Amino acid sequence: MCDHTAAILLDRCVEARMLEQVDIDAPNPGVVIPFIGWLGSAQMFWDSDLGKSIETIAYSLYRKPNPELEARADAIIDLYEKLQEPDGYLNSFFQRIKPEWKWTNLRDFHELYCAGHMIEGAVAYYQATGKRKFLDIMSRMADHLVARFGRGPGQVRGYCGHEEIELALVKLARVTGKQAYMDLAKFFIDERGQKPNFFIEEAIAQGRDTKSAQKDTLGYNQSHLPVREQTKVVGHAVRAMYLYSGMADIATEYNDDTLTDALEILWDDLTGKQMYVTGGIGPAASNEGFTDYYDLPNDTAYAETCASVGLVFWANRMLGRGPDRRYADIMEQALYNGAIAGLSRDGKTFFYENPLESTGKHHRWTWHTCPCCPPNIARLVASIGSYMYGVAKDEVAVHLYGESTARLELGNGAKVTLTQQTHYPWDGAIGLTIGVEQPTRFALSLRIPAWAKGASLAVNGQSIELGAATDRGYARIEREWQPGDVVALALPLVPRALRANSKVRQDAGRVAVMRGPLVYCLEGTDNPVGLNSILLGDGLGRSETAVIPDLNRAIAIDLPVLKEVIASDELYTAETPDVVAETARLVPYHLWDNRAPGDMLVWLRAQRG
Amino acid sequence: MCDHTAAILLDRCVEARMLEQVDIDAPNPGVVIPFIGWLGSAQMFWDSDLGKSIETIAYSLYRKPNPELEARADAIIDLYEKLQEPDGYLNSFFQRIKPEWKWTNLRDFHELYCAGHMIEGAVAYYQATGKRKFLDIMSRMADHLVARFGRGPGQVRGYCGHEEIELALVKLARVTGKQAYMDLAKFFIDERGQKPNFFIEEAIAQGRDTKSAQKDTLGYNQSHLPVREQTKVVGHAVRAMYLYSGMADIATEYNDDTLTDALEILWDDLTGKQMYVTGGIGPAASNEGFTDYYDLPNDTAYAETCASVGLVFWANRMLGRGPDRRYADIMEQALYNGAIAGLSRDGKTFFYENPLESTGKHHRWTWHTCPCCPPNIARLVASIGSYMYGVAKDEVAVHLYGESTARLELGNGAKVTLTQQTHYPWDGAIGLTIGVEQPTRFALSLRIPAWAKGASLAVNGQSIELGAATDRGYARIEREWQPGDVVALALPLVPRALRANSKVRQDAGRVAVMRGPLVYCLEGTDNPVGLNSILLGDGLGRSETAVIPDLNRAIAIDLPVLKEVIASDELYTAETPDVVAETARLVPYHLWDNRAPGDMLVWLRAQRG
Repeated sequence: MCDHTAAILLDRCVEARMLEQVDIDAPNPGVVIPFIGWLGSAQMFWDSDLGKSIETIAYSLYRKPNPELEARADAIIDLYEKLQEPDGYLNSFFQRIKPEWKWTNLRDFHELYCAGHMIEGAVAYYQATGKRKFLDIMSRMADHLVARFGRGPGQVRGYCGHEEIELALVKLARVTGKQAYMDLAKFFIDERGQKPNFFIEEAIAQGRDTKSAQKDTLGYNQSHLPVREQTKVVGHAVRAMYLYSGMADIATEYNDDTLTDALEILWDDLTGKQMYVTGGIGPAASNEGFTDYYDLPNDTAYAETCASVGLVFWANRMLGRGPDRRYADIMEQALYNGAIAGLSRDGKTFFYENPLESTGKHHRWTWHTCPCCPPNIARLVASIGSYMYGVAKDEVAVHLYGESTARLELGNGAKVTLTQQTHYPWDGAIGLTIGVEQPTRFALSLRIPAWAKGASLAVNGQSIELGAATDRGYARIEREWQPGDVVALALPLVPRALRANSKVRQDAGRVAVMRGPLVYCLEGTDNPVGLNSILLGDGLGRSETAVIPDLNRAIAIDLPVLKEVIASDELYTAETPDVVAETARLVPYHLWDNRAPGDMLVWLRAQRG
Repeated sequence: MCDHTAAILLDRCVEARMLEQVDIDAPNPGVVIPFIGWLGSAQMFWDSDLGKSIETIAYSLYRKPNPELEARADAIIDLYEKLQEPDGYLNSFFQRIKPEWKWTNLRDFHELYCAGHMIEGAVAYYQATGKRKFLDIMSRMADHLVARFGRGPGQVRGYCGHEEIELALVKLARVTGKQAYMDLAKFFIDERGQKPNFFIEEAIAQGRDTKSAQKDTLGYNQSHLPVREQTKVVGHAVRAMYLYSGMADIATEYNDDTLTDALEILWDDLTGKQMYVTGGIGPAASNEGFTDYYDLPNDTAYAETCASVGLVFWANRMLGRGPDRRYADIMEQALYNGAIAGLSRDGKTFFYENPLESTGKHHRWTWHTCPCCPPNIARLVASIGSYMYGVAKDEVAVHLYGESTARLELGNGAKVTLTQQTHYPWDGAIGLTIGVEQPTRFALSLRIPAWAKGASLAVNGQSIELGAATDRGYARIEREWQPGDVVALALPLVPRALRANSKVRQDAGRVAVMRGPLVYCLEGTDNPVGLNSILLGDGLGRSETAVIPDLNRAIAIDLPVLKEVIASDELYTAETPDVVAETARLVPYHLWDNRAPGDMLVWLRAQRG
């Protein structure tokens, strides 16, 4: 599916006339009105979408060669090569459409953000194909940034309104070995929110209205406080996730506990007070982001696909300093629910918003005027393998389970091939076969999800006691592994009913059903009654699973429920409703809106209030 | 309170610099950008607010002379007299600010709407003070309209995008006796929505974008179909209510059953599928109006105060062809809940939106850039007496109960004074004393609200059987009344729990408590736990009433409830909540946000799902 979706992304980028903006030999695609009137005209963030599309292609090529797709990517890279200025500057919008705006507004104009996504694309393309051209182009741009930004004389002490460049520079530094890129990433992180605030200073310098650069707006892009002093997750959700991802990278690279401390507080703040059960984040459309604690409306949830993708990025980077299921469980939860829902099963259509309740009007679309989500979920899916494992000097941590083969190199140079045989997440039985050339000592750390009560583990048929051996939620098996050793892990996938904190008023009296990492939902197509007439009592214990016929081998949950019946057809009645027994079918949330369109509901009414 | 609030309205109008727009000798108050940038600058609908303010003053003067207030109103009327053009045209915005826009855009520019409110003000001021000046001014404007609009040669076959002129012309016709005004009102009603659509024709003629005049927009102002063919209440809620009010007036005046038939369908549509239990209507902010059937979100309810005021107007006019509690019950419900909530107890601050759930951030304001609601609720409260009774040839119908004395003249010339002694709606005992100079035969029809199960009635201590004697919900007592006859009506005010139709997903598993005509709510100030942790079981039968200390003689309901307790502080937990017994206090919805600010909730969770 990866190259299929990657090709679709490219097609859509072409249809949106993005390449005309990049192609220096094409007619200038025309003017643009800032902030309004963007529909159908050039957009200042298009380079980012091309960057993410090339990144998706790269991951696809890594898995399976596709000369046609590679040629198309090469052609786009050639356009960028021609476009790049002698000093390394590269941004199609500010070169082709609005040269006079170049470097005038770091807060709103997404210049560094675009560079970041282009760098990510370049790194992935180099890693997948071995071709250096795009990497060299973006290294020249990075050199340009190293020269421009910093605390030296004549340098700009600024940073981007939309974080992204930070984590991208870390990737570039890792692949090129250039410390200057890493240091620039750290500079952007360290400078953010320092006084005087750069965005206010910039607005004054540019003669812009400074009111719009004040407190609320500063929180919008997380520049209201130095990052180490931030304790509450605020503002635009995607920006926040990208910032924290960059911070986590820098914390890992520099062993910076001050950053880790801040990140742990922010992590608890997000996952303990502001996250949907799907791993969706950012409930409000108005700021594409966060509002108040425990404000999690279901029908109007924004919960942008990109934000859940960003949460996966952040969670993954929180594992950079060692395995901890506190992060990996949420990574899986966001991945399998809030993020993956953004992509249709056929890989052709996309959600931007991911509500937890729908009255039948919300559907995936083929494209969007702000097309950030399609390439974002596509690149995540295409690179899912890189989120599954963590490798240290003498340890392999398995964060995610799924049918796959991984060739890993440990920090001590040992090579390990790890093969997973499993139908997870549909089935909880996971077999791991160890491939080593000779007996090799290392620790295999297997995540035991917090929900997996009664999990069992065996090596070569010999049961291993969980519990004491478990460190931060990982069962650590340290031994000299023989070629062909087999580890069997069984994670019981028993449907469970979750309640939200009583402060979440929108979920009061309701339960969400999960099975393993998957959030389930009711769809109108399976349950042709009002979904809010269905009451979940104690039926979960008597539920049965079934393979959904038209959704591959996905597992549905059929469970006994009660249906509330009010005989009166009046708008308001003093009549007390009756209840009748009924069976309801639940399907995985991430698969909703893939069959007949209709209502959808995650938070079912619980029988007792 | 009336003259107090009336004076406040005038003060605010002056602060908003409305009078500068009217005063031909004042400097021109400046330019305006259409549709955007109206904040703080002249507005095309300001005459309507001055008209409604003078109308409020008139009702206040009718109840209690106030020379100072009368002098202020006279001064404003003098300004309008000086402003009026020789041909009768009068509109301060289109004379003083944008003369070139005069009569160019009936759809959006509120010209006839403003004339309507000025006419209502003029009629009320004449009736209260006997002074003809304002009535004559607006009669000249009405003559101008009679000349301009119609089906004759050179006349415009148009009508206003914001209905209001129709019902105003009916009032003007009734007080002046001029049939031309009544006929013009009927013309506006009859023309609305005819093909070709006037607003599309007008847009074409003015070279405006016709797309914006298409189907959705036509529904917005109820011009999508001829009014007699309309079966669904759509669009802007206030506009719809004013249209239906005008239609009901014309139905009464012309005995037009085709209009009545349409109105009955629309009435059922509104009250059976689209009305909040508070009588609030129009859930959406985006169109200030209606969305889908049974879509009644509580926390984001727009439910504009003006819309509930408009519903009172319409319901009242549906009584024009005879008493029927189908209309009067809703009139009372909208009046005592959705409408009155718009005004603070001290008469100084105002709600525009009336949500049924608040997390503590919604409060009444002192003024608004679109200040339609304050004078609207004020004029309704100041004229409440006129909604209480219906008078026919030989019948007096009592629609509303409340401490008062009314001097009525029947259609046959008989004079009746009706005195109500009651603490209704706090207490259900209502005593009516008949004042007649000599024994007089007429029917006294008393509304028995549908909710008043077990109501009892007595005349001079002699019990009267209800039931057979009741016609469309009114107990009709026809007899020769003697001076001093006493009627005793007892309406049991037993708290009752209402469920919404199962199609109202937002109210699923919840109940609203009413006592008599009043909707009750939980306020955080009385219930310092999360309001959504409270479960109403069977406690209503064991509830007790109490006088609320700081809300005059208003009655609270204290009732046994359960409080749901989840020990875990996690965001999501598999833990099943406990319940503990608790007492909750409910207060009347219309009085909320008059004490300490905090949460508010109308729809309580019901114990069984």
